[in-house]
Amino acid sequence: MPEPTTTVAALRWRDGLQLLDQRLLPGRERWLDVDGAAATARAIRSLAVRGAPAIGLAAAYGLAAEARRNPDLAHLRRAARRLAAARPTGADLARAVARVLAAVERASSDERFESGLAAARALHAADAAACLAMAAHGAALFPGGKVSLLTHCNAGALATGGIGSALGVVRAVHAEGRLERLFACEARPVLQGARLTAWEAARDRLPVTLLPDSAAASLLARGTVSGVVLGSDRVAADGSIANKIGTYALALAAARHRVPFVVVAPTTTFDLACATGASIPIEQRNPNEVLTIGRKAIAPFGVEVYNPAFDVTPPELITAIVSERGVASPVTAATVREISR
Amino acid sequence: MPEPTTTVAALRWRDGLQLLDQRLLPGRERWLDVDGAAATARAIRSLAVRGAPAIGLAAAYGLAAEARRNPDLAHLRRAARRLAAARPTGADLARAVARVLAAVERASSDERFESGLAAARALHAADAAACLAMAAHGAALFPGGKVSLLTHCNAGALATGGIGSALGVVRAVHAEGRLERLFACEARPVLQGARLTAWEAARDRLPVTLLPDSAAASLLARGTVSGVVLGSDRVAADGSIANKIGTYALALAAARHRVPFVVVAPTTTFDLACATGASIPIEQRNPNEVLTIGRKAIAPFGVEVYNPAFDVTPPELITAIVSERGVASPVTAATVREISR
Repeated sequence: MPEPTTTVAALRWRDGLQLLDQRLLPGRERWLDVDGAAATARAIRSLAVRGAPAIGLAAAYGLAAEARRNPDLAHLRRAARRLAAARPTGADLARAVARVLAAVERASSDERFESGLAAARALHAADAAACLAMAAHGAALFPGGKVSLLTHCNAGALATGGIGSALGVVRAVHAEGRLERLFACEARPVLQGARLTAWEAARDRLPVTLLPDSAAASLLARGTVSGVVLGSDRVAADGSIANKIGTYALALAAARHRVPFVVVAPTTTFDLACATGASIPIEQRNPNEVLTIGRKAIAPFGVEVYNPAFDVTPPELITAIVSERGVASPVTAATVREISR
Repeated sequence: MPEPTTTVAALRWRDGLQLLDQRLLPGRERWLDVDGAAATARAIRSLAVRGAPAIGLAAAYGLAAEARRNPDLAHLRRAARRLAAARPTGADLARAVARVLAAVERASSDERFESGLAAARALHAADAAACLAMAAHGAALFPGGKVSLLTHCNAGALATGGIGSALGVVRAVHAEGRLERLFACEARPVLQGARLTAWEAARDRLPVTLLPDSAAASLLARGTVSGVVLGSDRVAADGSIANKIGTYALALAAARHRVPFVVVAPTTTFDLACATGASIPIEQRNPNEVLTIGRKAIAPFGVEVYNPAFDVTPPELITAIVSERGVASPVTAATVREISR
């Protein structure tokens, strides 16, 4: 069976951190040079890079780069704290920053940058390997003939250090010649599905159909979708997941129509210190994401907005959670623990 | 109790049909002069006017206006057929056109315009009265203190010949001083919630909060919304309803969280010749509604799109259907028949 691959990447190290500026996609492909922790935190907050694993890797490289600018440990610890706070919901960010900080702390002053960079590179390689393992586990959940999959937001190469979490599964099914169609919800308000997943799929020649988020329930009611596959920003100990706003509505529709609902998330995304979904902090974002598109106002000025970036889906609505360590199904505290390390 | 009112209208007759061009809202308020049946059909297809009752009234006036241009009966029958086919899902359109055509057919050649116009005016007045009656019936479903309501798309003054169907209920609650907040889903892809409902609410000083469609399930999970109220383009004999895409997902979330789900629709929207929701024709619209916003591309060129304008919600997910004749609850073929005439 051919190995799934991609031509897409969210970030790279070229004697410095470079991020593919996802705010400009699909119109322009521009690599941003991001030097140091503060610039990386800004890039994360502004969504130049997004997706829990990719955010974690960007922060890891960003902290390593900061060690080149100023190897003072107290300074680097402050920088690490600020980086870890750039976005609240994803679990990977704090973990990746802690890993690089630990490497930096173990090194002598003139080896801090190299040690931090080696730690960031190791995280990156591990994430790419995790994507491949998840792809194999996930594709095996849809055996047999042709398969149509529905995804939400972007859990692809643009969200990870490899072929993607959910889109890794899609790529594995495609590599086996079995992908009938990938349905991509557009993911308002920031439109990661329209701008990123559709772009990433088109670039890698996956057959993709875009739909408004609100059309997914009627699509699932038609009975032609084999499964919903999506990523997660944080997996709690009970198997609740936080993911892009709209995930919960998809889970309700999938349950209603008995469509398997599969969450694909590397162990870096698991946070067993969160007992349930209720303990996951949910980021509220800027109203302008809803009130404008580009620079165009689409609603009257000054209207109030409810704009949570994520929602929580409880374990009883999730058919399976896939990590690089295996598959939790049914989703219980015990099965989640098993695939979390 | 003060009568609910509005400063907003979708259409008016000023020695000719004028439509408030809803494609330009909220940025510009421009009244379009629309002369004759072909121009009215174009305005309907292009969404200059939308909302099942308003579409029916526009077509009624448009056919009357056509009788002034050319009173030939064979010509008017052809014009009526083309008007009735301008959009497939709403039930009001064919009914309103048939009513005006019947009036025209009964009149002598030089009275056809006046007869047709009188029939259109009568439909308009009846719709305005139906809105008031529905508002009273609907508000009574939310008795007691403060009430927060969630709506989808625009079932307001901009969608009817009066204060609106669902927004009529909201206005009645507000007139009683009991509206805590109106939550308005934006209704991608055409954004009738953001562009029309938020505008209409702001203009009439209703406290309104806009949200992406995908955020509604998490909002309902919070337990602070008293009810979902929305319109319908067609009510089938079994109590299934077709309404703006996204309605079905809202119904699933409302059922999960035991939030009353109330459909507000004048009898003109009822089509008992449709046995079930499966017999309601669902319009597929242009992919560009999803691929672009204004003139800005938000997805890669050439991507396939799934863009149904409506979805179907089955009766078991609907707490009540309100028409000007009363309230059907529980929603069954028998209760629906009772409020349909």
